[in-house]
Amino acid sequence: MNQDWWKWGDPKEHRHLSEYPKMKAMLEERWDSKIIEDFLPPKKFDITEVTEKNKETIKDIFASLSGKKISFKTEDRLFVALGKSYFDAIRVLKNDQIAYPDAVLAPTTHDEVDYILLQAHEHNIQLTPFGGGSNVVGALSNDNLKSKPGLRISLNLRNMDKLIKLDENHMTATFQGGILGPALEKILNEKGYTLGHFPQSFEFSSLGGWVVTRSAGQASTFYGKIEDLVESITVATPTGTIHTPHFTHDATGINILPLFFGSEGTLGIVTEVTVKIKKVSRYQRWVCALFPDFDSGSLCLKECIQNGVKPSVVRLSDANETMLFAKLASEKHQPTFTENIKKEIQKWVLKFKNLESPCLMIMCLEEIGPNAASQAVFTKNLIEQYQGMVAPESVGKKWAENRFKSPYMRDTMLEHRIFIDTMETYVPWEDVPKLHKNLAKVLSTSKAFHKEKGFFLAHLSHIYPSGACMYFTLVTKMNPGQEIEQWRDIKTLVTETILQNNGTISHHHGVGADHQKWYLKYSDPLTLEVLRAVKQKFDPKNILNAGKLYNV
Amino acid sequence: MNQDWWKWGDPKEHRHLSEYPKMKAMLEERWDSKIIEDFLPPKKFDITEVTEKNKETIKDIFASLSGKKISFKTEDRLFVALGKSYFDAIRVLKNDQIAYPDAVLAPTTHDEVDYILLQAHEHNIQLTPFGGGSNVVGALSNDNLKSKPGLRISLNLRNMDKLIKLDENHMTATFQGGILGPALEKILNEKGYTLGHFPQSFEFSSLGGWVVTRSAGQASTFYGKIEDLVESITVATPTGTIHTPHFTHDATGINILPLFFGSEGTLGIVTEVTVKIKKVSRYQRWVCALFPDFDSGSLCLKECIQNGVKPSVVRLSDANETMLFAKLASEKHQPTFTENIKKEIQKWVLKFKNLESPCLMIMCLEEIGPNAASQAVFTKNLIEQYQGMVAPESVGKKWAENRFKSPYMRDTMLEHRIFIDTMETYVPWEDVPKLHKNLAKVLSTSKAFHKEKGFFLAHLSHIYPSGACMYFTLVTKMNPGQEIEQWRDIKTLVTETILQNNGTISHHHGVGADHQKWYLKYSDPLTLEVLRAVKQKFDPKNILNAGKLYNV
Repeated sequence: MNQDWWKWGDPKEHRHLSEYPKMKAMLEERWDSKIIEDFLPPKKFDITEVTEKNKETIKDIFASLSGKKISFKTEDRLFVALGKSYFDAIRVLKNDQIAYPDAVLAPTTHDEVDYILLQAHEHNIQLTPFGGGSNVVGALSNDNLKSKPGLRISLNLRNMDKLIKLDENHMTATFQGGILGPALEKILNEKGYTLGHFPQSFEFSSLGGWVVTRSAGQASTFYGKIEDLVESITVATPTGTIHTPHFTHDATGINILPLFFGSEGTLGIVTEVTVKIKKVSRYQRWVCALFPDFDSGSLCLKECIQNGVKPSVVRLSDANETMLFAKLASEKHQPTFTENIKKEIQKWVLKFKNLESPCLMIMCLEEIGPNAASQAVFTKNLIEQYQGMVAPESVGKKWAENRFKSPYMRDTMLEHRIFIDTMETYVPWEDVPKLHKNLAKVLSTSKAFHKEKGFFLAHLSHIYPSGACMYFTLVTKMNPGQEIEQWRDIKTLVTETILQNNGTISHHHGVGADHQKWYLKYSDPLTLEVLRAVKQKFDPKNILNAGKLYNV
Repeated sequence: MNQDWWKWGDPKEHRHLSEYPKMKAMLEERWDSKIIEDFLPPKKFDITEVTEKNKETIKDIFASLSGKKISFKTEDRLFVALGKSYFDAIRVLKNDQIAYPDAVLAPTTHDEVDYILLQAHEHNIQLTPFGGGSNVVGALSNDNLKSKPGLRISLNLRNMDKLIKLDENHMTATFQGGILGPALEKILNEKGYTLGHFPQSFEFSSLGGWVVTRSAGQASTFYGKIEDLVESITVATPTGTIHTPHFTHDATGINILPLFFGSEGTLGIVTEVTVKIKKVSRYQRWVCALFPDFDSGSLCLKECIQNGVKPSVVRLSDANETMLFAKLASEKHQPTFTENIKKEIQKWVLKFKNLESPCLMIMCLEEIGPNAASQAVFTKNLIEQYQGMVAPESVGKKWAENRFKSPYMRDTMLEHRIFIDTMETYVPWEDVPKLHKNLAKVLSTSKAFHKEKGFFLAHLSHIYPSGACMYFTLVTKMNPGQEIEQWRDIKTLVTETILQNNGTISHHHGVGADHQKWYLKYSDPLTLEVLRAVKQKFDPKNILNAGKLYNV
């Protein structure tokens, strides 16, 4: 799409004030003056050409990047220099002195971004990432660097717009960070899925941009903010690449993924994002209303959300905004927010005649799965489908009554020299049966476990769209005099089998001393360095739980 | 409660193997040997008394702390030295060389913890926090410090067990970090709320411990892991106190709260935690089943969770675990997991006779709010209750059709010299009406906004149990030649009014250049320092978006 560099969005959709004569008249009346169209962008922008010397320098530094991916063109430098705020727009119209980058690089792969960052780091080149370019708080501005010497480049990530993997089995999808909303939703919708993330800028903002700005979509009250939708990310930084842990639901020390939420381009470039996808809702139900005032509507919404109503879209307009909607709806030849609504609004405003200035509320409810009340029925059908047999409710109730009692059995067993320990992990669904079988197999040939004499029990205890927590109970004869060695042998065998079958080090037990060896082995070195830097700030003398986790 | 220092939990609940004769016989048969009770804890533990000199030193260093809160008693030092794992237990039974702290300090307030940390930092004293003491992966072990010279203390947080604030209006509760599960739930249940967090260790694990170990409760599939339940925390660190931002649902740069999830005592002591509470469910419905094998049950659960079934408790046992349950249920005089179940299990195992080794699944469904299908009805009732009038569904549908069109109007308005900008924030419910009124009021007296000539529109766009996102549209005459000053004046007025009315700097727009001034002013200095240390690791030459966010 041919986007105008300073105006919003698709040129085909651009509007002119003459399409809104009633609104224009209302403004003129309130302001008691004519509105004239005379604040237009300058014919030519005040932008210095990049010198041949600088062009050569930049081409040399990024010599491994295809020449086509490096641009010094004025239009490309303009396009990435500003976001879409009112402030940005008036600066354009005023031909204000804006800081433009010397070049725009447009990589297409993580490796290219990585290369660009390493080279920029080596040569002290300032770098600003550009995703969708829809920011409205000056996040793309480089004015603070105007007086700083040296070269500046911008990274236009719009060509990093590919699906890397759609994993229907685990309901996740991995995209490159530069993909815009519509392309992402199109890919997911074709398979019956959605991310459910629709910020106002949806059409012109990128997945990576959503992550680094902590984006909220119009449907986030139901689906969650972007922080709730991301499973893992890959980030290129000037000192190397970070792959955050594959899953968010484990207990393997500190996950540094959240450090990148809200990092606004200061820590690295988010090149790949794995998101948690949802099935497209079966139907949507709208509830709309008018309230006598803003406070009543606001109290109503508070009651809704605190009592378990979970709308996707919800908007409560105050009286002014509602009136403007009504005004817009009454414009002639107005293709948006239109005739139908006009009639409707006027109808209820009339009905609502006791109220001088009503407030409009709209709310959308999503029907994704079975209703809570019918979940039991749905589940029972599935049980039959999987050759199961429904059992009485009392079994579950009894479990709940006694659920905190089972650990008491452990101690008397120990005093009778019975080995009994529990271990746990989070495993993707496809690895659940594999891990179960493989662990049974390795234990049945383990001398420490007394092979077939040992008892190996397992259960799933927490489920996620992407997998489950597997919990193991191991019972065998204790080896007198060798109790500690026996435990170490079994612990090592189980942990390594878990890791070989794509399980995490822990789902909820944590790292402690017992898992630290594996935590250190499987943690990314740059992540460990960052955590040590954090530790150094909080606890410079290393007095708190010294030697634990990353801190060795 | 008088807890045994190495055995699990409440001594009144302790069990003896003789209560499980069938299980004992099964083990003896499989192992072909008698089980004898001869692995008992030593009469006296190998623990060195603290020297008088060290006692005096510790008392001196922590002189401001009441003497009653410092203990050198063997039993107190024993109690905090180990967790509750099999490995910890066999070390006790073997009288293995365990590292014990020299003293146990038991603070009752955040200020006391802060004082202890500052003093320990000053005097290079090693410190290990102790919450509930239920850890099973060696998190409490200090064996790695055995050869390190210097004094070691343990912080027993069990007396930090108070409710600080129950905020029913916003559905949050603030507790001290040392409170154990039952005390916390009791306080909440009395008012009709729950946290919904029930790890197996619930009775003997602490809120702060859940946070630093990334705990998952038995009902976390429905309520979320502890990471999902926390709004904010207060942490004492050796270099000062961190209060994380009050809310998690904003877009004000990086929230460092997640750095403490999984930090396992290495970064600081979590002294206060504000949690998101839920209304107690109206009823619970159990669905239980037997499957012919583990894989069928696992596929069934995968289908459930991917199709919107959201159980709180879910457990699928493999054939071995199911058989052990059946065995336990058939023990005589067995007070737990009992007769009722026994009969039930036997009954369906018989019914299920085609299957040699069935797998038991139990699942609990919570009815918290109205069902998805009845949310519309529930909401419509509320609308009437708040004097609203239900409007046609078409209003919402039309909004959705046109939702990405509105920004296009902006540009033509600018060219006609009309000021139009949008600003947004997250506000607690009680401040919603206040902020709405106050902002209208300050704008109506603002010269830059042309007082009463300006149009101020507002809506709520995202709702949470604790508050809502408020979104403002401002329209007025542009001041020719003073466009930038006018915008700065209005931006400043709006942002400062938002902050004075307890709003956040941003709910979803971010920080960028426009909000940086306020971000820096309202961010905690230690947080900024930590973020700079992280930046230094990733981007030591400061080439990425230099000067943005914390990076000045």
